[in-house]
Amino acid sequence: MKDISRNLTMLCDFYELTMSNGYFACGFKDKITYFDVFYRSNPDNGGYAVVAGLEQVVQYINDLHFDEQDIQYLRDKNCFSEEFLDYLRSFKFTGDIWAVPEGTVVFPGEPLMTVRAKAIEAQFIETYVLMMINHQSLIATKAARLARAAKGRPISEFGSRRAQGSDAAILGARAAYIGGASATACTISDIAYGVPATGTMAHSWVQMFDTEYEAFKTYCSIYPNNATLLIDTYNVLESGVPNAIRAFNEVLKPLGITKCGVRLDSGDITYLTKKVREMLDAAGWTECKIVVSNSLDEYIIRELIRQGACVDAFGVGERLITSLSAPVFGGVYKLVAVENDDGSIQPKIKISENVGKITTPHFKKIYRLRGKTTGKAEADVICLYDEVIDDSQPYEIFDPEHTWKRKVMQDFTATELMVPVFKNGEQVYILPTLEEIKARCEQEIQGMWEEVRRFTNPHKYYVDLSQKLWDIKHEMLRNRR
Amino acid sequence: MKDISRNLTMLCDFYELTMSNGYFACGFKDKITYFDVFYRSNPDNGGYAVVAGLEQVVQYINDLHFDEQDIQYLRDKNCFSEEFLDYLRSFKFTGDIWAVPEGTVVFPGEPLMTVRAKAIEAQFIETYVLMMINHQSLIATKAARLARAAKGRPISEFGSRRAQGSDAAILGARAAYIGGASATACTISDIAYGVPATGTMAHSWVQMFDTEYEAFKTYCSIYPNNATLLIDTYNVLESGVPNAIRAFNEVLKPLGITKCGVRLDSGDITYLTKKVREMLDAAGWTECKIVVSNSLDEYIIRELIRQGACVDAFGVGERLITSLSAPVFGGVYKLVAVENDDGSIQPKIKISENVGKITTPHFKKIYRLRGKTTGKAEADVICLYDEVIDDSQPYEIFDPEHTWKRKVMQDFTATELMVPVFKNGEQVYILPTLEEIKARCEQEIQGMWEEVRRFTNPHKYYVDLSQKLWDIKHEMLRNRR
Repeated sequence: MKDISRNLTMLCDFYELTMSNGYFACGFKDKITYFDVFYRSNPDNGGYAVVAGLEQVVQYINDLHFDEQDIQYLRDKNCFSEEFLDYLRSFKFTGDIWAVPEGTVVFPGEPLMTVRAKAIEAQFIETYVLMMINHQSLIATKAARLARAAKGRPISEFGSRRAQGSDAAILGARAAYIGGASATACTISDIAYGVPATGTMAHSWVQMFDTEYEAFKTYCSIYPNNATLLIDTYNVLESGVPNAIRAFNEVLKPLGITKCGVRLDSGDITYLTKKVREMLDAAGWTECKIVVSNSLDEYIIRELIRQGACVDAFGVGERLITSLSAPVFGGVYKLVAVENDDGSIQPKIKISENVGKITTPHFKKIYRLRGKTTGKAEADVICLYDEVIDDSQPYEIFDPEHTWKRKVMQDFTATELMVPVFKNGEQVYILPTLEEIKARCEQEIQGMWEEVRRFTNPHKYYVDLSQKLWDIKHEMLRNRR
Repeated sequence: MKDISRNLTMLCDFYELTMSNGYFACGFKDKITYFDVFYRSNPDNGGYAVVAGLEQVVQYINDLHFDEQDIQYLRDKNCFSEEFLDYLRSFKFTGDIWAVPEGTVVFPGEPLMTVRAKAIEAQFIETYVLMMINHQSLIATKAARLARAAKGRPISEFGSRRAQGSDAAILGARAAYIGGASATACTISDIAYGVPATGTMAHSWVQMFDTEYEAFKTYCSIYPNNATLLIDTYNVLESGVPNAIRAFNEVLKPLGITKCGVRLDSGDITYLTKKVREMLDAAGWTECKIVVSNSLDEYIIRELIRQGACVDAFGVGERLITSLSAPVFGGVYKLVAVENDDGSIQPKIKISENVGKITTPHFKKIYRLRGKTTGKAEADVICLYDEVIDDSQPYEIFDPEHTWKRKVMQDFTATELMVPVFKNGEQVYILPTLEEIKARCEQEIQGMWEEVRRFTNPHKYYVDLSQKLWDIKHEMLRNRR
C-alpha cells in the first residue's frame, strides 16, 4: 500500500484550541473527560447506517503532533499562553478510545466511539474524528443502499470528478467499497487502500478516431480481454451497437473471446438496454455485459430493474460519492462525563431547547441482542460501562420515550458492539483489512430483518437504554428544571 | 504558508490510464488535442456561479509525476505495455492551458478552462482538474449566495466536522472565503491558505464547569478581548443570558471592555435573539454581538433578517461546507478539437441522446461585454480562438437556440475572460493572492445586474456563440445526421 497520509493535526476547529488553552489556564488540563460520538438520524430516512472511518482516526491519533510552524502560527494569534504553546510541543494522545468496528450496522443515539482522556486531549480531536466518521459512514451507508437496490449486480464507484475534494474521492471510494460497491474508478484508492480500480474508455476515446468503428476496433485490439465499449457517443442503436458488434466479430471472435461489454451513459436506459440486449444476443454476443451509468441512485436502479432493463452492472458517480440526496451524516461529539478527583465518574448532560439535541449522559457501552434461532438483530441496549447483560436469562427492554412499551427478550445472544482501540494512548486494536471490513458489513446487513433494511418507512430498530442508565438520565433532567 | 500538499498524480480515473496506454499503442500519443472544462447548470437554480480551484490545479500540474511504486502498481495490472510504463517515468505536462481566473462569475456552457496538449497529457489530467474546479466552484458559489442573503453581516464557515473528508474541509474553507465568507473555524486553512480562523467555545466548555456562570466568568477572564459566550447549553433566557451578563459585568466592565458576544446554536432564533438583544441592551451591553448558528442556509438567513431577528453574524456549517441543497457542481471535460498533421484545427463534437449533453466544438475563447455607462455585465460571447470583438463598433449577439432573438450591443467594453496559465508546460500565470481573488469575486458580483443575482427565477444571463462558431457547430450537427 502506498502511504498518502499527511499530518493533519491542525485540521481542528479553532475553538478546540481556545478551549484547550482555557482548560490549561484554569487547571482542567489533566481532568479526565468522556466524550461520545453519536448521530441523530439515518441518512435518506433509512432504517440504519454503516459506520466507517475508524482506520483513519487511528492513524490521525497516532500521528498527532504540533511542529514549530504550528506553534509559531498560534503564537502570532496573540491569544495563547507561552506555557500552553510549550505544552503543545510534546502533546500526544494518552487516553483510551472504544469504538464500534468499521462495517458495523449502527443506529441513531448509540455511541459509535467513546473517548476517555484528559480534557485537552479529548477536546482537541473532536473536529477530525467527527469529520472522518461522518464522511465515511455517510458514503458507506449510501453504498449499502445502492448495492441493495442492485440485487446482486455489481456497482462501480465512478464519482471522483464530482467529489468534494481529494479525500472525498479517495476515502469515499474506500467507504463505498465497505458499504457494498465492488470497484472504483479512483486509481489512488487502489494503490493506497486496495479498493479495486477499473475503467475502460470515455467519449473522448471515441471522438479521437475518424469513426466510431475504428475507435472500437482499436480498443478491442489493445484490450481484447477487457473490451467494454462506450456506445452512446453518436447514436446507440444506429451506430454504437452495430459498430461494437462489428469490432467484437472482427477482433474478439478470431481469438475465441466471448466475454466483453458495452456501456451506456445517456438516454432511456430501460428502452435502450432491452434493444441493445436483443441486438447483441441476435449477433451471438450473449455473454456481452451491459453496463449503465448516468446520474443513477438507489431509486432509479430499483426502478430500472423493476422495468426489466437489461443491465448487468451499474456505474454510480456523483449521487454516491457525495451522497447527493443526503450529503451530511450528522455525527456529533458530546461530553458525557468527567472523573472526580477520587476517580468516581460524574455524568454530564447537555439540555437543549431542541429536545432532539439532549444527550444521554455517562460512560456507556452497547449490547446488540440477536435472536438465537433467527440470527437476526432484535435490539440494541445502551447501558452503563460496568453493566453486564446475561444472555442466559430473560432480559426486559423498554422504549426510552414510551416507557410502557416493554418486551422480555428470551433465547438471545448479547454481544458488546464497542471494542478497545486505544489504552493509555497506545493502539491496542489490530486494524482489520479492507476485505474483512467489507465482509463484516455484508454479514451485518444480512443480520438485519428485511423490515429494517427497506427504503420506505423502515421499521424503527429498538435502541433502548438500560433501566439504570434511563434512571440516571431522567434524574439529571429533573434536577436541571 | 504551510505546505500541506501531496503528490496526487494517481488521483485519476483508471480509464485515463487505459485510454493513455491505448493512445500510446495506436500512435496518438503526440496528437495535439483540445479539451474544455464547462458546466451545464447553476447550483440551486441560481443565476450564476463563481469559479474557483485554479491554484490547486496549477500546483497539481506542476507536481505531476509517476514514481516507481506507481509504475509497479500499474505493471501488476497486466494491461499496460512496458513501453508505456517507461514513458510514464518521465511523464510531465508540456501543453498549454487557458483559464478563467478564480473568483470570476461564470455561466453554464462557457469554457472555464481550455487544455491544449498531447492526447495523453490532456486526457490524463481530466479527473483531478474536474474534481478541483467542481468542488471549489460549488462552495464559492454557495458562499456567495449566503453572503448575499446576510446583507453585509459576516458569515463564518463552521463546517469542517461535516465536510466530506479533509480537503472538503480545508479547501472548502478557502472556496467559502473566496465566495464571501469572512472567516473559517478550520485552523489548517488559515496556516496553509491564509483564511482567517476564529473560534471561542463549544457546549463542552460550559458543561466542564460546575455552573454555567463559572464557565462564562472563566472564559471572560482568559479571553477578555474575545469573549463570545455560548448561551444555549441549559436555557437561553433563564440562565444563558443572565449568566453572560453577570460574567461581562464582573470581568469585562472593570477592564473597560465593551465589545463582547453571545452565540445561540438552537431554538427559535428570531424570538430568542429579540429577547436576548433586549436583555443585553437593558444591562448596558449594547455593543455585545449576537452570533447565531444551527443548520442555517441562505433562505433561512434571508427569512431571519426579514423577521427582524437581532443577529450580527452567522455561523454556517454543513449547509455551506457540503452545499447541502445542491452538493454537485457538474463540470465536465470534453474533447473539442484535435490538430491535424499540418497544424490545422479539426473541431470535434459529442452528440448525445440527451440534447443537453451535446458539446460546443472547437478551440474557443470568451468575451464579456459590459455596458460602458453602467459597468454591468450584459452578455458573454463564446467565439473562435482567433476572433476579435472590436468594442468600438456595434456588435450583434443572438440566442444560440432561438436565433431570431437578436440584439445589437453598443457603447460596451469587451474583455476576454480566459488568461494563459501554462505555455509549453511552463506556468506563465502569476497566481493572485487569496485576498485578490476574494476582492475579484466581490467586484464581479457587484458587476452583475440585480436580476441575475436574485435567488428566485433569476434572469438568464446571455451566453451566446459568435456567428462563426454557431455556423461550425450546426454544420457538424447537420453532417452527423
